[in-house]
Amino acid sequence: MRVAIYGYGNLGRGVELALRQNPDCELVGVFSRRAPETVKTATGAPVYAAADILNFKDEIDVLILCGGSATDLPKMTPALAKDFCVVDSFDTHANIPAHFAAVDVAALAGNTLCLISAGWDPGMFSLARVYAGAILPDGEDYTFWGRGVSQGHSDAIRRIPGVLDARQYTVPVPEALEAVRRGDAPTLTTREKHTRECFVVAAPDADKAAIEQAIVTMPNYFADYNTTVTFVTAEELQRDHAGLPHGGRVIRTGRTGLDGEHTHAIEYSLRLDSNPEFTASALVAFARAVCRMKARGRTGCLTAFDVAPADLSPLSPEELRKKLL
Amino acid sequence: MRVAIYGYGNLGRGVELALRQNPDCELVGVFSRRAPETVKTATGAPVYAAADILNFKDEIDVLILCGGSATDLPKMTPALAKDFCVVDSFDTHANIPAHFAAVDVAALAGNTLCLISAGWDPGMFSLARVYAGAILPDGEDYTFWGRGVSQGHSDAIRRIPGVLDARQYTVPVPEALEAVRRGDAPTLTTREKHTRECFVVAAPDADKAAIEQAIVTMPNYFADYNTTVTFVTAEELQRDHAGLPHGGRVIRTGRTGLDGEHTHAIEYSLRLDSNPEFTASALVAFARAVCRMKARGRTGCLTAFDVAPADLSPLSPEELRKKLL
Repeated sequence: MRVAIYGYGNLGRGVELALRQNPDCELVGVFSRRAPETVKTATGAPVYAAADILNFKDEIDVLILCGGSATDLPKMTPALAKDFCVVDSFDTHANIPAHFAAVDVAALAGNTLCLISAGWDPGMFSLARVYAGAILPDGEDYTFWGRGVSQGHSDAIRRIPGVLDARQYTVPVPEALEAVRRGDAPTLTTREKHTRECFVVAAPDADKAAIEQAIVTMPNYFADYNTTVTFVTAEELQRDHAGLPHGGRVIRTGRTGLDGEHTHAIEYSLRLDSNPEFTASALVAFARAVCRMKARGRTGCLTAFDVAPADLSPLSPEELRKKLL
Repeated sequence: MRVAIYGYGNLGRGVELALRQNPDCELVGVFSRRAPETVKTATGAPVYAAADILNFKDEIDVLILCGGSATDLPKMTPALAKDFCVVDSFDTHANIPAHFAAVDVAALAGNTLCLISAGWDPGMFSLARVYAGAILPDGEDYTFWGRGVSQGHSDAIRRIPGVLDARQYTVPVPEALEAVRRGDAPTLTTREKHTRECFVVAAPDADKAAIEQAIVTMPNYFADYNTTVTFVTAEELQRDHAGLPHGGRVIRTGRTGLDGEHTHAIEYSLRLDSNPEFTASALVAFARAVCRMKARGRTGCLTAFDVAPADLSPLSPEELRKKLL
């Protein structure tokens, strides 16, 4: 399948690298809104101007969008869905129904097949929730994130005056995790589920106490959590916190039996050295499914929920049954 | 959907109980090869003679087969697939391709839709392997079972002369599990992955040393494992080992990046108080998918790999996207 990348940041680079691991994929090129000659790709993939993408309509089977969910994808995905089969990683949970509707209209009008919100959350975590909920109807879901870097929270700290750089880790509370796993089915507040660890580089003349106060009281981002702030040098941040690890787990516990006397726990967990590279790898697998389903005549908008797992795999149905079932 | 149960042991009873948790399901009845009046169901579901099942052809949307994989299902599933949409939990991994082929022929001839090998392994563990392999092509799979009761191994011990009863637990080796999770990608022998714990009730005059020797040297079942044998009284076995807990985990570790410098671990784990009740709950979810896919015109044989997750859930696609994505 012939794949193109639209947008070249950490995620686009991850897709470029992931495609090399999938022999059935061919990278047509990277499309960027920056001047192509200023974009250097990791593997030397050709770079084209985003404005020229319609010239490549017949050369691209599926286009993987690597823009941000805040401002890029809400416009980008429906616009490109008219002419291309696209896959995106739209992750603003509350706006998924509206995004789905907009992409569905565009895809049906353009006779394309699109898939939104691929990745790990939304994505693999969402799938874990659907499977577990279908098997254990009498139960409860828990999602824990981390230990990992939240880029949104890191950005929020960087916007505080006097902050030069920052890294924020989301960390699940071990006691909460254990109570859930045991099957206690606890009701947990935001504060009881996760803590937040912040590593901050302050400007030389900055008021560190004021920065710390600004962080721990920040509404939505930190006020509802137990938050620790550690000031580090730029060198320490680069040395100890340069990566983008993440992960987490979805747990569903539930009951079966004549009187609900048996409890069960289903847990899906991820430990990721690189959040963008793992997300990119998921996008490539879903791009494969989109190609196959489009070839069978499907059009419109999909999510991971609509994809039979066999369509994600490079193996044939016969191989899958023989080797993995 | 109108569901019937064929075969009434632990699994059939589990399906009966699981159906009560799914308001979109109606239990038509239990079909048994025993005399119906001798079968007492957990919730008072009606029992019919298996020989009469064709009289119910127009009243059953999907038939859940609860026979054993060794001798029942290889004949039962293809035979019933001619007249009913059936779901089974066939779990003899090596014979899945042949079983699939036989059921596919029968289902296509009968214009029915059937799904084989639902449950947790094969079933949910198989799905975990397919998803993880599609996302991390450069990686390795590990499956650990337990701590849990292996009924096959318990039966093998019971066949030894002088043994009155027995319970065998399969236990993963913690060090192996940790090495895998860390991403060491170890090559593990059978002995390095699991140990086996046997609790045995011996006849009063039995030679316990001979029984222990017969167990630990038994080919295929125990010879390749570190096995411990503990003799207990019938009362102790009943008190401490009456349940059928099981579980396990599928782990895939893999690498991404320019030089494979980032490692990732995907882990799917189950902790089950009742192996048959959890398997039964999975069978009911897959029965729902079979009904929906049949209504859309699909026929032949499927496995879990062919089912879009949305089809397993009682929630509508809109609800799924809004609540679980």
